[in-house]
Amino acid sequence: MLLNEMLGIEYPIIQGAMANIANADFAAAVSNAGALGIIATGSMDANQTRAEIQKCKTLTTKPFWVNVMLMNPNAADIVDVIVEEKVAVVTTGAGNAGAYVEKLKNAGIKVFPVVPSVALAKRMERLGVDGVIAEGGESGGHVGEMMTMALLPQVVDALNIPVIGAGGIGDGRGMAAALALGAVGIQIGTSLLVSEECPIHENYKNAVIKAKDTDTTVTGRSVNTPVRVMKNKMTRKYLAMEGQIESREELEKLTLGSLRRAVVEGDVQNGSLMMGQIAGMSKEVKPLKQIFEDYMSSFNTCIENLSNIQGELNGKNTK
Amino acid sequence: MLLNEMLGIEYPIIQGAMANIANADFAAAVSNAGALGIIATGSMDANQTRAEIQKCKTLTTKPFWVNVMLMNPNAADIVDVIVEEKVAVVTTGAGNAGAYVEKLKNAGIKVFPVVPSVALAKRMERLGVDGVIAEGGESGGHVGEMMTMALLPQVVDALNIPVIGAGGIGDGRGMAAALALGAVGIQIGTSLLVSEECPIHENYKNAVIKAKDTDTTVTGRSVNTPVRVMKNKMTRKYLAMEGQIESREELEKLTLGSLRRAVVEGDVQNGSLMMGQIAGMSKEVKPLKQIFEDYMSSFNTCIENLSNIQGELNGKNTK
Repeated sequence: MLLNEMLGIEYPIIQGAMANIANADFAAAVSNAGALGIIATGSMDANQTRAEIQKCKTLTTKPFWVNVMLMNPNAADIVDVIVEEKVAVVTTGAGNAGAYVEKLKNAGIKVFPVVPSVALAKRMERLGVDGVIAEGGESGGHVGEMMTMALLPQVVDALNIPVIGAGGIGDGRGMAAALALGAVGIQIGTSLLVSEECPIHENYKNAVIKAKDTDTTVTGRSVNTPVRVMKNKMTRKYLAMEGQIESREELEKLTLGSLRRAVVEGDVQNGSLMMGQIAGMSKEVKPLKQIFEDYMSSFNTCIENLSNIQGELNGKNTK
Repeated sequence: MLLNEMLGIEYPIIQGAMANIANADFAAAVSNAGALGIIATGSMDANQTRAEIQKCKTLTTKPFWVNVMLMNPNAADIVDVIVEEKVAVVTTGAGNAGAYVEKLKNAGIKVFPVVPSVALAKRMERLGVDGVIAEGGESGGHVGEMMTMALLPQVVDALNIPVIGAGGIGDGRGMAAALALGAVGIQIGTSLLVSEECPIHENYKNAVIKAKDTDTTVTGRSVNTPVRVMKNKMTRKYLAMEGQIESREELEKLTLGSLRRAVVEGDVQNGSLMMGQIAGMSKEVKPLKQIFEDYMSSFNTCIENLSNIQGELNGKNTK
């Protein structure tokens, strides 16, 4: 069963949980446009999370999910709020969701952890999660080392629960590729940064639009917190320091507040402009609804092309 | 037009140019099995290259190509041999093929450089190459930083010449994904390491079969020669040294002869076992013909599934 059917929504697309960006307004806008919105609580505390969930309920009658960023020191309190607010589904990112799965499941909440490997995916399945989001390291923000083309089919083969594909998906061709690899739907983030509704600074949107394919890099590999961001003055400094010192504290100082600097202040040189390798495919700001419709239309064209190719190939092969 | 039609062969599949592995016997075996074999000259000099090309001509009447590894100090001499031997097509890897394109084109030889970015792909197109192989960093051996899901559609959109997809392709689902992203065909390497015909040590084949999704790593990022290999004693030592010293010479000492140690001696702890992130998908040794037939059969199943999915989605969307 495809993701849209599972969720009772129009498109088999869920929004990436972008900390500092995906607030109640944005998540509701995504859900109202026919995909699935997710409130990202990565930079929130428990009270802020409660306020955003309650606000989102007033902004849409459609389903929305909440993401718990496991490196957030408030994660445990946020999970309690999610249970109290009876959120339908929780996704988790940047870590092992093990500690919270039982509590959420006991409260009747579905859990979809983001996983970067077959091993973590299998561990999560054993804990009883409802599905996983297999995310390749092409994506923006916190990343793993496995990439979507190789990760997705291996996770699909290893599990019996639904797998959503994420990382490196930039249009309907990417959606077709993810579905070909066995995903029931896709999660996209970078494509939505350039939506009219996305509450990031105009400079950040323009940076995504101007970005070329190779304009992102990964910082933090040496301290085991790899993050994909746009190359800028901050990343050059960070990567140079990473070669010399590997003190997590020293490096963290450099990025402290840097996502906020990008999102709120529009500082494209000193901010963390999280974006994936498909940033080069985003050429203009469009309404969310248009972005989803464009995905579906290029998906349809792509599948028709593939059917024709298959016909040609089998014509040749039947000798 | 699909790659198999362009080349007059059965499958739209070309073999990866694996130095120390893809000799005349192996390339001929691949071509005789219906895909396209490539002699990899990465570890050869001009005389060895001539001998392998002449041998390959005696072993198959089907087309085969020759790869020039641009970091090979013998690259210029090898190009001269290729011109003299009237090879039909040359692929190039691990560098900028600019220096040799004119000479090869003047000799009537087609050129397909391997490219890791849109910028290099466009530069190659301007030089008049006949197509490119866009290879994502999921692959084994020398890699770039762009990954297949994100690289392939961006290269396809930027060029007017055919694009072959490579990196992270482990079965017919991966082939369908690459074709969805706009490739005219695929290049595969890791899947062929476990062919009966592949002339690598049995220990190397067993290591591919036993490998899990996350069992590869990338060495050499600090000295700008990133190479994806299986994690072992050698890579642990290398990566530890890479954190401390960044002298190319010191690091090269560690890997000197290490590919040979893997391929010929079967030393899985101290050798460079080049393999891609799809190594986890290779479960048994099979004849080449069977590997290609399995690709085509899972490709066909995959496209049928995608057509059904499209039908379901459009049923839902037509309200």
